Amino acid sequence: MTMRLYDLEVSGNCFKVRLMCSFLGLPLELVPVDFMAGEHKKPPLTDLNPFGEIPIFVHGDLVLRDSQAILVYLARKYGGETWLPTEPVAMAKVMEWMMVGGNEIMRGPNDARLHVRFGYELDLDLARKKAARILGLMDAHLSKNQWLALGRPTIADIACLPYVGIGHEGGVTLTDYPAIRAWIERIKNLPGFITMSGL
Amino acid sequence: MTMRLYDLEVSGNCFKVRLMCSFLGLPLELVPVDFMAGEHKKPPLTDLNPFGEIPIFVHGDLVLRDSQAILVYLARKYGGETWLPTEPVAMAKVMEWMMVGGNEIMRGPNDARLHVRFGYELDLDLARKKAARILGLMDAHLSKNQWLALGRPTIADIACLPYVGIGHEGGVTLTDYPAIRAWIERIKNLPGFITMSGL
Repeated sequence: MTMRLYDLEVSGNCFKVRLMCSFLGLPLELVPVDFMAGEHKKPPLTDLNPFGEIPIFVHGDLVLRDSQAILVYLARKYGGETWLPTEPVAMAKVMEWMMVGGNEIMRGPNDARLHVRFGYELDLDLARKKAARILGLMDAHLSKNQWLALGRPTIADIACLPYVGIGHEGGVTLTDYPAIRAWIERIKNLPGFITMSGL
Repeated sequence: MTMRLYDLEVSGNCFKVRLMCSFLGLPLELVPVDFMAGEHKKPPLTDLNPFGEIPIFVHGDLVLRDSQAILVYLARKYGGETWLPTEPVAMAKVMEWMMVGGNEIMRGPNDARLHVRFGYELDLDLARKKAARILGLMDAHLSKNQWLALGRPTIADIACLPYVGIGHEGGVTLTDYPAIRAWIERIKNLPGFITMSGL
């Protein structure tokens, strides 16, 4: 049964799904979405995802929106206890950083990039301030930990990687965050790693 | 072993944890935090949570930040397959709405309330615009579904409830969202429900 991703190459959220499938060795059919024409904001794509966003992931009857939810599906279905364990403490520790990937990083480095690279109207100073806060917290954490959770790669790392790694496209560089840079290199050295433009 | 919550009564994120423990019949020791004095932004609380935020949840050696991560822990440890099932599709469907609770709802109704009730400097018009968008999407979903995911109460409902239900404190009322109002009533009728001020 084919797995299909409604995809945009420059989307970090779509990249999370491409990267996870690559790590797991899963074939993934990419359906490019004409983002500039707003294809994701009209039927038939809004029938799949009323939020009018990508990624959209389709596997048989299953349709999922939200990159973090898709990572959870792939990890639980194909990753055994490796990428998202079911043990309560371990799962919660991964979840702490999944939420950072879906919230603080989106409001910081991602918003800065949306403004600078794609012309979104938003408060650039605020986005950079939020970026500095979350990157400082991540760098402090990664200076004492090789990975965000559990001492090994999990979907938390995948959820947090893209917009941190391409934040320089919004002027949010990693110059002051050596532990984050080292963490990105560790992810890039994992078997099955693929990249995206800007990373 | 005592479960301890560093708590603020008016915090919707703290309420998520209190409500979940009540639904599960778990005793929870509340440690009130002097939020106005910034107690959460200084040691010893920043030793527990470097993010300088509450809730902070302590259970023996385990320390968790982020309300969604705490819900995951409680659901997996004490909720069997009820509140957060391990089956991949079901878990991903819950996760879609957990992310809404941690992102869209925070940027919408919560930001509006932070500005109006607590004087936070932020863009009120933008917060209200984002609130209208996510409430419209939720109302459409709940007009066809009794619960956010799986056709039954899950931690997705708990994660999304508080800031939607108290958004009126930021001028975000539910007048135009009858399906959301009916969903809140359903939650309030669940055995073990407790409330918070404003809800």
